[in-house]
Amino acid sequence: MESPFSRSHALFSRAAAVIPGGIFGHTSPAASLPGASPYFAQNAQGCRYTDVDGHEYIDLLCGYGPIILGYNHPEVEAAAARQARDGNCFNHPAPVMVELAERLVALVDFASWAVFGKNGADMTSWAIQVAREHTQRKKILKIAGAYHGAHPWCTPGHGGWIPEDREHIHAFPWNDLDAFHTLLKRFRNQVAGVIVTAFHHPAFGDSILPAPGFLPSLQDSCQRAGIVLILDDVRSGFRLHLGGSHRHFGFEPDLICFSKALGNGHPISAALGRENLRIAASKVFLTGSFWQSAVPMAAALRCLEILERENVIAHLEQIGAILRAGFLSAAGRHGFSLHYSGPDAMPFFTFANERNFLRNQAFCRAMIRNGVFLHPHHNWFLCAALQDKDVQEILRAADGAFRLLREEFPQG
Amino acid sequence: MESPFSRSHALFSRAAAVIPGGIFGHTSPAASLPGASPYFAQNAQGCRYTDVDGHEYIDLLCGYGPIILGYNHPEVEAAAARQARDGNCFNHPAPVMVELAERLVALVDFASWAVFGKNGADMTSWAIQVAREHTQRKKILKIAGAYHGAHPWCTPGHGGWIPEDREHIHAFPWNDLDAFHTLLKRFRNQVAGVIVTAFHHPAFGDSILPAPGFLPSLQDSCQRAGIVLILDDVRSGFRLHLGGSHRHFGFEPDLICFSKALGNGHPISAALGRENLRIAASKVFLTGSFWQSAVPMAAALRCLEILERENVIAHLEQIGAILRAGFLSAAGRHGFSLHYSGPDAMPFFTFANERNFLRNQAFCRAMIRNGVFLHPHHNWFLCAALQDKDVQEILRAADGAFRLLREEFPQG
Repeated sequence: MESPFSRSHALFSRAAAVIPGGIFGHTSPAASLPGASPYFAQNAQGCRYTDVDGHEYIDLLCGYGPIILGYNHPEVEAAAARQARDGNCFNHPAPVMVELAERLVALVDFASWAVFGKNGADMTSWAIQVAREHTQRKKILKIAGAYHGAHPWCTPGHGGWIPEDREHIHAFPWNDLDAFHTLLKRFRNQVAGVIVTAFHHPAFGDSILPAPGFLPSLQDSCQRAGIVLILDDVRSGFRLHLGGSHRHFGFEPDLICFSKALGNGHPISAALGRENLRIAASKVFLTGSFWQSAVPMAAALRCLEILERENVIAHLEQIGAILRAGFLSAAGRHGFSLHYSGPDAMPFFTFANERNFLRNQAFCRAMIRNGVFLHPHHNWFLCAALQDKDVQEILRAADGAFRLLREEFPQG
Repeated sequence: MESPFSRSHALFSRAAAVIPGGIFGHTSPAASLPGASPYFAQNAQGCRYTDVDGHEYIDLLCGYGPIILGYNHPEVEAAAARQARDGNCFNHPAPVMVELAERLVALVDFASWAVFGKNGADMTSWAIQVAREHTQRKKILKIAGAYHGAHPWCTPGHGGWIPEDREHIHAFPWNDLDAFHTLLKRFRNQVAGVIVTAFHHPAFGDSILPAPGFLPSLQDSCQRAGIVLILDDVRSGFRLHLGGSHRHFGFEPDLICFSKALGNGHPISAALGRENLRIAASKVFLTGSFWQSAVPMAAALRCLEILERENVIAHLEQIGAILRAGFLSAAGRHGFSLHYSGPDAMPFFTFANERNFLRNQAFCRAMIRNGVFLHPHHNWFLCAALQDKDVQEILRAADGAFRLLREEFPQG
């Protein structure tokens, strides 16, 4: 039988000749469902996209996060096209950079300044430099298994980094205050910054919300020890709270990094910080050929306007709650127990008696066959374009997928 | 008298409240002509742009390099808009990634694979990781004063990096083979990679072409010692030779990094390498949320097509030769002697008896007043949209600027 992904496979064969591994990075088929997933996308609209073999999917991954309003949002694309007619990359920034910085600084309560880049890691890596410059210390504490980008100090990859890249990077487990305090004691007066995400969303694992007091306690310790607390809000930014995910969880960092959803798919990232970090921020050279380009900034400004006007976060919560109840109930009907984790706007689930993600993979394979795209080992992302009828379609697909799974895994 | 840049200054005041330093990075007014230069761009077309105060300039900086065909090139923008209608950032790459990789691999003679990012430093930093992975060695040799991006291992900035970031980075002077061999001897069997630009284009300095034999000699030594030779072609790529600037200068690296001109202003970078580096390349994790976005790839594919079809490099050489002759002759008419340096497509000049760039700054100030934008301490970039009449306009402006300079600097 011919594969339903024959065009994806043919393109991948061509890709494999001219690109190491064929497709690199987070979209690599090797990281999800080789052979049972599309490899290339043709087009997208709203909450749906079509692969190169002509299959349409309701998308629960949203480009791994950037798409928050839905693909090709008409207002965002119109704002981008209007700016593109004037120009994108100049010798100088365009006025929209100032407007966007003003808008973001107004949104993020503790921040008095903003800078821009293209990618999340442009900002997380710069943020740890700012922490080092501000404190004149070297140590950075991070959460074990947390993703902050593919730079040598933090990449989850095994190749290409040397021990010196991480000589002053130290990890402690999420929600483990004892381990944190042990590191603080061990490196007394040496810690420049602590970088965290607002909840723990490791690949190949359940998402874990912050334990009560965990993040405020980090904040308190950092404040007392003069340490810069950095919130990497690249993945969850604008899906939990428009003013930064710290508002959702009740704490306050000193510096926050955004990217993904900020421009609804247009390439932009931003870091915002407290007034007391302004001098250090101005001393750490930050630049890139396209980092002040105007089109993604115009898109971001319009995206923020729509997020607020349409109360998108409430919509994601509401849709997410229906999805959660529906997935749990469908699983229950077929005798499966789920670990459903993460905020409802960025859910993920594993199977309660699962050790190796085989059920997750089989479930996602079946969902993809049924026209719903999600990932077996990476948290999902909801977007504003998802309506009740889409959720019902997702849950019908899930019912079929769990039924099939029951045959494949008779023990549950 | 009101400044001609009152709107730029008003925007800058707003920017200074919400952005550290007002404008950061390479476009910072502090790095060029504070008070005597526009700070913000309004729109651009062809070889000209207009600032927020309504002044139009013939542009000799081209967005610091990205604009090679001219701003808002209709064919490139049409290709970008067509892809944007389908989508930009998906869960998967789009077919255009494969087409672009195939096109680049066909263009670059020694390369058998390509990968993509957004910014030059995404690629140069990844390239040194690939060199380390391939050789399982740590040392990287670079040229003193060469720019490879703003990452800690190479940033020209003073803030935010720690000595550990550069523990295995060692610099030698451009064109100094003795210094190179001394480092090779000192770090025998420890050098992973050597990274160079195709000619030396430091900020605040004359450009320096490679001495005869310099680059081939680096190539030969790297080959014999199993060292990866990396060409950072971010700045000069596609302006000297369509197949990579090594072709222009007669040598062959193992890995080449492109960005700037590749997408005529659309955010994209690429690295290409030899077959023997494919495995190492696949082992060094490389990703970013927008690195496989389709719109800049569609723009790049069209840009490459036009560069070849219109024989743009020959046009840049021709226009550049007229400019060189014209600048030198205008300077001579007013009793100035210039150091005119760099390839004609990326020229720069300083004043022969100049120590402090004061004449360069005064010259650029006058040129800006006369409607020609260039930079006092950074090499310039020509674009294909420059026609004879533009060059004549530039040279008329230059004549006026040198005349004025003669009054300001009566000693020459």
